[in-house]
Amino acid sequence: MTRHDTPLDDKHPENSQLRDAAPRILIVGTGAVGGFYGAALARAGAQVTTVHRSDFDRVKQHGIHIDSLEGMMHFRPHRVVNQVEAADTPDFLMVAMKALPGLPVAEIIRPAVGPRTVIVMLQNGLGIEEPIQQAFPEHEIIAALAFVCLQRTQPGHIQHLCHGTITLGRHPEGISPAVRHLESLFKAGGVPCRVTDSPARARWTKLVWNAAFNPVSALAGGITTHAILAWPEGEKLIRTLMGEVIAVAKAHGHPLPDTLIDAHLEATRSVAPYHTTMAQDYLAGRPMEIDVILGAALKAAHTVGLTMPLLESIWILLKLQERKNED
Amino acid sequence: MTRHDTPLDDKHPENSQLRDAAPRILIVGTGAVGGFYGAALARAGAQVTTVHRSDFDRVKQHGIHIDSLEGMMHFRPHRVVNQVEAADTPDFLMVAMKALPGLPVAEIIRPAVGPRTVIVMLQNGLGIEEPIQQAFPEHEIIAALAFVCLQRTQPGHIQHLCHGTITLGRHPEGISPAVRHLESLFKAGGVPCRVTDSPARARWTKLVWNAAFNPVSALAGGITTHAILAWPEGEKLIRTLMGEVIAVAKAHGHPLPDTLIDAHLEATRSVAPYHTTMAQDYLAGRPMEIDVILGAALKAAHTVGLTMPLLESIWILLKLQERKNED
Repeated sequence: MTRHDTPLDDKHPENSQLRDAAPRILIVGTGAVGGFYGAALARAGAQVTTVHRSDFDRVKQHGIHIDSLEGMMHFRPHRVVNQVEAADTPDFLMVAMKALPGLPVAEIIRPAVGPRTVIVMLQNGLGIEEPIQQAFPEHEIIAALAFVCLQRTQPGHIQHLCHGTITLGRHPEGISPAVRHLESLFKAGGVPCRVTDSPARARWTKLVWNAAFNPVSALAGGITTHAILAWPEGEKLIRTLMGEVIAVAKAHGHPLPDTLIDAHLEATRSVAPYHTTMAQDYLAGRPMEIDVILGAALKAAHTVGLTMPLLESIWILLKLQERKNED
Repeated sequence: MTRHDTPLDDKHPENSQLRDAAPRILIVGTGAVGGFYGAALARAGAQVTTVHRSDFDRVKQHGIHIDSLEGMMHFRPHRVVNQVEAADTPDFLMVAMKALPGLPVAEIIRPAVGPRTVIVMLQNGLGIEEPIQQAFPEHEIIAALAFVCLQRTQPGHIQHLCHGTITLGRHPEGISPAVRHLESLFKAGGVPCRVTDSPARARWTKLVWNAAFNPVSALAGGITTHAILAWPEGEKLIRTLMGEVIAVAKAHGHPLPDTLIDAHLEATRSVAPYHTTMAQDYLAGRPMEIDVILGAALKAAHTVGLTMPLLESIWILLKLQERKNED
């Protein structure tokens, strides 16, 4: 599906407004993920504004360089700001910050959320849409799931190592005109994009990968996906963790296909060795997304009366590391 | 029991020989454990020779300084050598090297093993006596289990943080005159010493502690025993691992008391925070005793048809780290 045949309902006021001009997109927390997808949306003709903290000066002056599978790319955002307050109200506000506990996402984005702003949750984990929906009960929330390997190599520089597919769905379910519009933009920008009427199921599918590869790659000392799979015992550990997540997903009404583990492993093997986000954070001594990936899975297991013995133990090891680093 | 009432059979030729003069003791692999117990044996009047590699020059010149719970102590061995070949044949040869895979212990000690040398295995782990017994089928082997917190702070310097009890038993079982003799020496040197006719059971008891605290303290980033127990989830993880080892010990004919876990935790809490050997090695980037502690436990589980799901996963994580470091 290319951009011109997107089945948008032009008579819908929101969509006609979106069609009138280049859609305005605000990316909050523009790290590797936000920069990579922001560049694609800009290629599709959107007016992309990016919010940065540490990289602000660098990106304002030089833009973002992406060393992509498709070659070197340069992305100069429409505007570069260092706080949400400085941005105009967008049509789509994309939340791309690392999902760390205690981060008041709703309050951070509130200054830029206009009455018709659609909020796109591009973060990792489970249950990230709910608090935003509570804070903005009248707003449309889109869940966006990126299946991509990215690494921020230095301020304003992103390395794109594999994949790139993004999956979109309206929270809590359904495919809205806004979802279709965003889909058309991603596709026009060259990003493989799928829509789903069950983003929760897509989140579980992604969590199966994340909850296995992320903690193992970190606890094993910051190793790549391929280093884990190079040893049959490493693969076995990954399979066990994935199995625990799949069981909980099923109990939550999301039976995932039996082939999912093999498919995840095959997809991981078919691309370059990758340091997961958690491995990158571990090696850099940065906080890791422990709670949103593992803590949320454990909470979900608890609510349906299941246990995840291995995942829980691995969560404890990572939390013990975190407690040490907080000392 | 003090030295003079040791129930030695003076008519036994081996014992009368031992009694004739100060017993000659050779400590191979004199790190913190060998240095600490060597000092005690020297205090008891034994002629202690120590074999060193990296610390040789330092110890030859300055001896070994022990910052002990009982105050500063200085131990100047009878002889300091840098290879086993340079040592005289001892009455007791104590193997105190770190138990790393591939280390040909029997070949290392062979040059100093005389016809009546008793070999004392002071290493960690399970199954360490068997290959030595095979290599020296006519020799008496004593299993020695140290329950002690030690840290080598710099070459020739040892910090003694807690405990010190040593448990001795003849391999594979029994209490021999040589065991009693060694017991009397340790006691005369001020070291609490117990003898057991089931050193295998004592090894399992120690493994319950080692297989839990060692890997968790390392994987959590090199934290202390108290840092693990300061968080209830940390204690839970320790209890789970200990439970897996206890089940395998039972299947091997060594039912351990129900109170063992509580006793181990209480003993750990009652003394100062301690970096386990594996945590010390982790922090220093040195090889860890993964195989002898965890690998041996897994092998033991396998032979009785049991699994240790958590211990196995933790073993995999540590082995993945090891593979990374070997790259």
